[in-house]
Amino acid sequence: MRNFADQLTDRIAELKNPTVMGLDPRIEYIPDSIKDKYIKELGNDPELATAWSIYEFNMKLIDAVCDIVPAVKPQFAYYEMYGVQGLEVLKKTIAYAKRKGMLVIADAKRNDIGSTATAYAEGIIGATELAGGATQPMFGADSVTVNGYLGIDGIKPFVDVCQRDGKGIFALVRTSNPSAGDLQDLKLEDGRTVYEAMADKVNEWGKELIGDNGFSSVGAVVGATWPEQAVEIRKRMPENLILVPGYGAQGAGADAAVASFTADGRGSIVNASRSLMCAWKKREDLSPDDFMTATRDEALDMRDKLNNALKDRKYV
Amino acid sequence: MRNFADQLTDRIAELKNPTVMGLDPRIEYIPDSIKDKYIKELGNDPELATAWSIYEFNMKLIDAVCDIVPAVKPQFAYYEMYGVQGLEVLKKTIAYAKRKGMLVIADAKRNDIGSTATAYAEGIIGATELAGGATQPMFGADSVTVNGYLGIDGIKPFVDVCQRDGKGIFALVRTSNPSAGDLQDLKLEDGRTVYEAMADKVNEWGKELIGDNGFSSVGAVVGATWPEQAVEIRKRMPENLILVPGYGAQGAGADAAVASFTADGRGSIVNASRSLMCAWKKREDLSPDDFMTATRDEALDMRDKLNNALKDRKYV
Repeated sequence: MRNFADQLTDRIAELKNPTVMGLDPRIEYIPDSIKDKYIKELGNDPELATAWSIYEFNMKLIDAVCDIVPAVKPQFAYYEMYGVQGLEVLKKTIAYAKRKGMLVIADAKRNDIGSTATAYAEGIIGATELAGGATQPMFGADSVTVNGYLGIDGIKPFVDVCQRDGKGIFALVRTSNPSAGDLQDLKLEDGRTVYEAMADKVNEWGKELIGDNGFSSVGAVVGATWPEQAVEIRKRMPENLILVPGYGAQGAGADAAVASFTADGRGSIVNASRSLMCAWKKREDLSPDDFMTATRDEALDMRDKLNNALKDRKYV
Repeated sequence: MRNFADQLTDRIAELKNPTVMGLDPRIEYIPDSIKDKYIKELGNDPELATAWSIYEFNMKLIDAVCDIVPAVKPQFAYYEMYGVQGLEVLKKTIAYAKRKGMLVIADAKRNDIGSTATAYAEGIIGATELAGGATQPMFGADSVTVNGYLGIDGIKPFVDVCQRDGKGIFALVRTSNPSAGDLQDLKLEDGRTVYEAMADKVNEWGKELIGDNGFSSVGAVVGATWPEQAVEIRKRMPENLILVPGYGAQGAGADAAVASFTADGRGSIVNASRSLMCAWKKREDLSPDDFMTATRDEALDMRDKLNNALKDRKYV
């Protein structure tokens, strides 16, 4: 079973593109023509009409970029909010992306005590034992985001599945939101901040999962909106994968988004959700039905901007 | 819309029982007779057989205690691990518990940036707008556990739904697991620990949601396994509800479990999952098919132990 960090860094190198497309399908992101079709067909079941609209939109977004973008990151909240039908679409979307050769980062930010963390790990990246004794994968993602507030025994069950099945995790270190600092910036008496202490923990947790390319499948989430901190965090965790949210709609540009990459431009992957999914809304030259073209153009532009930013680093 | 903290504290007073029954249905907790029935009926679909086994087990557990226990706490991980069918059972279990007059605490420990936290809040305790414009509740719980690592803008969307719909949240402060201290015990330069700083934040976040009974619908999770800390935490957050995991199978007794209650014995609710759900495994005098009796006996015993511990407080 090939190490997740190797799979991801290989694919990034192959496509020369350190981008992951977030799939956060709020209903207002979907062009009317798709929604109208399913409302017409399934209007007496708006939950199902919504779910099918999301699934068609997701499949087409994946089709639009699967040969140029290495991974997708479905945000679980945007499927859970559409109920059980939404979660069925999440499962199908993960399977579809994998069939199209993309790696899947489940953005679920899960966290709990040991026995419960095992349940999350089994369900999202591992496999579950059912009544009668059969064991089968449920959501089947390649990796999952986690929150380390509970310490190592909430993380260890995920690490065990990573080791067994070639999967990965990304633990929150420094998030991209405006109030990230409320807790994460508090100063410890030893001089570190809380997020630096978390970075050190994540680095420690990842020591046994370092692959052939030199990166650990235990990664970190470090927002693009805090580039100075990202540079410092990379120094603390030279061999951990870093998932970078906050590019595009959340406000960070390419220079900030590449701050956490290693000196040789590796080891991080930058997420964009709204800027890719809603690219069609900014294109007056295209019909909304050409949303695939808009997303692909935006993905190519993002790839080029990231690669240019890596050639001429602003934050080091 | 009645404040959640009022609903919960009223029901605790009415039943004289500050207990919540955790519903964490691992397949091995379910008596064979239930599983065998569904495997026989649905053996070609083990996912569905598992889901129906869980649903029947949950319904009977709810029937066994709904007149003596105020609330249930389904742990989302144990439904997600059984896939989409498991999540369908989660939804049905929540609805069934509410029909039986119980309050529902969704144990999901959700956390994300603002826009995504809104999606979680809508899905779990609020309502979602669907294609075509209809808005409807999805999981329909009364409250949800959250993780405050992202600071106020990951919490505010939940608080807004609480205010609008009479719902509640419980934010992790001090968890019950052995490695809780990895992050939570780190000392800040101002002398507080990380968990004390989190307690202060949660207290601040809850100021506007204090109900007639004097408690805020913005509550905290404080493990029974750390009674000395629980006493100190209650001093920092005199008016926040506190959800207390760790009783029973996780090792804490009644004296430790009531450490966070106010001086007049209110404001906290103690969870037991395995000790209630698997009570039948310890009863050699009963058939496994009498698991409802075993659970009810255990629930009555727990109620009496908690009330006795409240009369003669060990940790103050």
